[in-house]
Amino acid sequence: MYIKKLIAALGESKVSQNETVLFHHSKDESIHPPAYPDVVCFPESRKDVEDILAIASEYNIPVTPFGAGTGLEGQAIPIHKGITISFEKMNKVVEYSPEDMRIVVQPGITRTALNQRVNRDGLFFPIDPGADATIGGMVATNASGTTAVRYGSMRDQILDLEVVLADGTVIHTGTNAKKSSSGYHLTGLFTGSEGTLGLITQVTLKLHGIPEYSMMARCTFESLEDCIGAVQTLLLSGIPFMRIELIDSVSIEMMNQQSGHSFPVKHSIFMEFAGFKRAVEEEVKLASEILLDFHASDWAVARSEKEKSEVWKARHELSYAFQHLDGLEEIGGDVCVPISRLPELVTFARERIDQSGLKGAIWGHVGDGNFHTSIIYNPNIERERNAAMETNDAIVHLAIEAGGTCTGEHGVGLGKKKFQQKEHGAALDVMKRMKQFYDPKGILNPGKILD
Amino acid sequence: MYIKKLIAALGESKVSQNETVLFHHSKDESIHPPAYPDVVCFPESRKDVEDILAIASEYNIPVTPFGAGTGLEGQAIPIHKGITISFEKMNKVVEYSPEDMRIVVQPGITRTALNQRVNRDGLFFPIDPGADATIGGMVATNASGTTAVRYGSMRDQILDLEVVLADGTVIHTGTNAKKSSSGYHLTGLFTGSEGTLGLITQVTLKLHGIPEYSMMARCTFESLEDCIGAVQTLLLSGIPFMRIELIDSVSIEMMNQQSGHSFPVKHSIFMEFAGFKRAVEEEVKLASEILLDFHASDWAVARSEKEKSEVWKARHELSYAFQHLDGLEEIGGDVCVPISRLPELVTFARERIDQSGLKGAIWGHVGDGNFHTSIIYNPNIERERNAAMETNDAIVHLAIEAGGTCTGEHGVGLGKKKFQQKEHGAALDVMKRMKQFYDPKGILNPGKILD
Repeated sequence: MYIKKLIAALGESKVSQNETVLFHHSKDESIHPPAYPDVVCFPESRKDVEDILAIASEYNIPVTPFGAGTGLEGQAIPIHKGITISFEKMNKVVEYSPEDMRIVVQPGITRTALNQRVNRDGLFFPIDPGADATIGGMVATNASGTTAVRYGSMRDQILDLEVVLADGTVIHTGTNAKKSSSGYHLTGLFTGSEGTLGLITQVTLKLHGIPEYSMMARCTFESLEDCIGAVQTLLLSGIPFMRIELIDSVSIEMMNQQSGHSFPVKHSIFMEFAGFKRAVEEEVKLASEILLDFHASDWAVARSEKEKSEVWKARHELSYAFQHLDGLEEIGGDVCVPISRLPELVTFARERIDQSGLKGAIWGHVGDGNFHTSIIYNPNIERERNAAMETNDAIVHLAIEAGGTCTGEHGVGLGKKKFQQKEHGAALDVMKRMKQFYDPKGILNPGKILD
Repeated sequence: MYIKKLIAALGESKVSQNETVLFHHSKDESIHPPAYPDVVCFPESRKDVEDILAIASEYNIPVTPFGAGTGLEGQAIPIHKGITISFEKMNKVVEYSPEDMRIVVQPGITRTALNQRVNRDGLFFPIDPGADATIGGMVATNASGTTAVRYGSMRDQILDLEVVLADGTVIHTGTNAKKSSSGYHLTGLFTGSEGTLGLITQVTLKLHGIPEYSMMARCTFESLEDCIGAVQTLLLSGIPFMRIELIDSVSIEMMNQQSGHSFPVKHSIFMEFAGFKRAVEEEVKLASEILLDFHASDWAVARSEKEKSEVWKARHELSYAFQHLDGLEEIGGDVCVPISRLPELVTFARERIDQSGLKGAIWGHVGDGNFHTSIIYNPNIERERNAAMETNDAIVHLAIEAGGTCTGEHGVGLGKKKFQQKEHGAALDVMKRMKQFYDPKGILNPGKILD
């Protein structure tokens, strides 16, 4: 019945019940089991989104937004069926102001498409979660990645969101101004809300100037303590790193196998420096001196674009390295802790992974205290599955106890709901009431973040 | 009756009805008329704040938080009387982790006291609104200032807030981790909420490394268009300015009178560069070349600490220059617009001020598109008072129409309530309902931001 109404409102071309389309919208890149929506809508405008939401509200049908399907916590899986809204046709640049370093886009544009548009003007959008996610999806999960050490997360890039609320109200959360102290800050609230409070139909982003010059460097350490001590000192020194990544020895081994590189199989830091050429050369020199104090070895630099991009490609593909092991699954963690607690956390994670008898890698955005664990298991062997889950859970619990968070950038979705009480305490009840406030019928991506 | 309860709960030393104390807490640095609270409480712990709020809630008494009284929009004026909570005794450092570049403080600590504590470790807290405000007050208004072009606003510095809600619940909005994608982002919501949603009892802040070297430069322009065109090009060039300030010719004249300097009386840009010495030298060279393209004159640099601090002192005191004119009052504006709209806005502001027959200055944080207007009038002459208000209103209306905000950093308080509907549209109703959600009895700083 409601599907007929959707077709009447949007036209047949924007509503699909095709099996292949439903399948494509049943899953993301996580291990969470797929679930088919009943119907997929392809809005082309905010008006279409409003129409869908009005019908969903009338018939009490769950609505799940879908970007590029690259999420890692099942946010786009319609576990309660109903309507999936694919934003793939809402992928336009609405307004672009290079002189203000600002762009207004629809949520379905991908970050590479966005960058292709602005790079020619010497500008770029820095947030780089690895996957070619849509901007809407990145807003919904508050994505970040390797460049967060310099530019922050998605939340730090957003000037304004246009949001359709459950009751049909359309609001703007901000303005085109770079900063504001007016009203309540709703931008931060909707960012990271995973489609559970409203549907984002337009995003106004800050852009940044492409640095004139960049250089990559890497080095290795015998101990994790030295490695993290070095990073702390490097950050205190004021070097404005573009990237600073920890890759543990097991992960280096995987990277070598996967990419054909032959990086020394030791705990390593991969760094990128970016800015004016003379400044970068100075920073690299200072960094190399600091690193010597921490017994770093195998210092190597890369200046050419080709060399740099090959190394970062190998690093980015690390997260996919495991997924290509036939028949095996990977559970990924992305806890974030104060940097002083990193040695303890990373050591604990390594010990627990080794004790589990499973293979697993540790790497991450060490400048933010955010690190990833990838634990590989055979989903058909119950002992392996349980060991993988228990190991992951133990790492998350320790991270929260260390003053950290269960997720630095992947979001809560389905997999991290169980940690919300421990992490947020009394605030969780406030969050639940906020959900009730914004979505009294519970139709907006139900079952994500909160139960 | 409730005052007796306050004394019983807190002890006599923390509760005052002394006339001088009431007077001191009746006003801030704005032109809004003073209003006396019935009683001032001086909590020393979160527990004290909880007790005050429980009593206020039981007796339906308004509660107004008070920091250093340096606000510019009447946020701390208890217009509905009742209880004022002075945070002056809650001014401790709770926890300090230099290696994590993080500090936990009570809300009553001032930014200079905070900096004194951390500077010795090569760290600093960059947000500099000019006045020596408390951190709690700066959170409540989402303050910023001259360094926002590099470090952002208060909201960008906060990892966690401890908040006592109207119903007595104590929540933490974040963790000690540098970033998180867990739960709903309440930190951003409470920042800038001016005590209307809850009372902040603890703040966890990011710190930054003190740059190794800094240099100041200034130059002048014949036209505002050239001046702002130059700033746009400088920002696109990727120079990480520490400060970049526009000061119009009228303001320069006032600065010279006030400080004894003899800066050329023309539209000027004052810049600060900071980082590694060689990088700074390189940036200054590049900036001077770009500025020549925009016909800049009177290029001058300052390297010594003494020279630099004298110039910035003169700049900071500009906002007080007018207040010292006997018997006159000053209405201050702080709109923020996309930088491409600045020439239009600044030109309009200058024309309207001149047409009003009043004296007024224009200066501001041009890198953010945020500028201040100070219009001076005799409050006893109705024509002058009206002309000052009308001129200020006209500038704000044009700023909002240009896609900007009525307040870049001072907050809404009493003076900018009338612009909320125009700026936020449908979102204002959501904000009103959020206020109702968090403060159903309307006892938290009533009459601020919203009516």
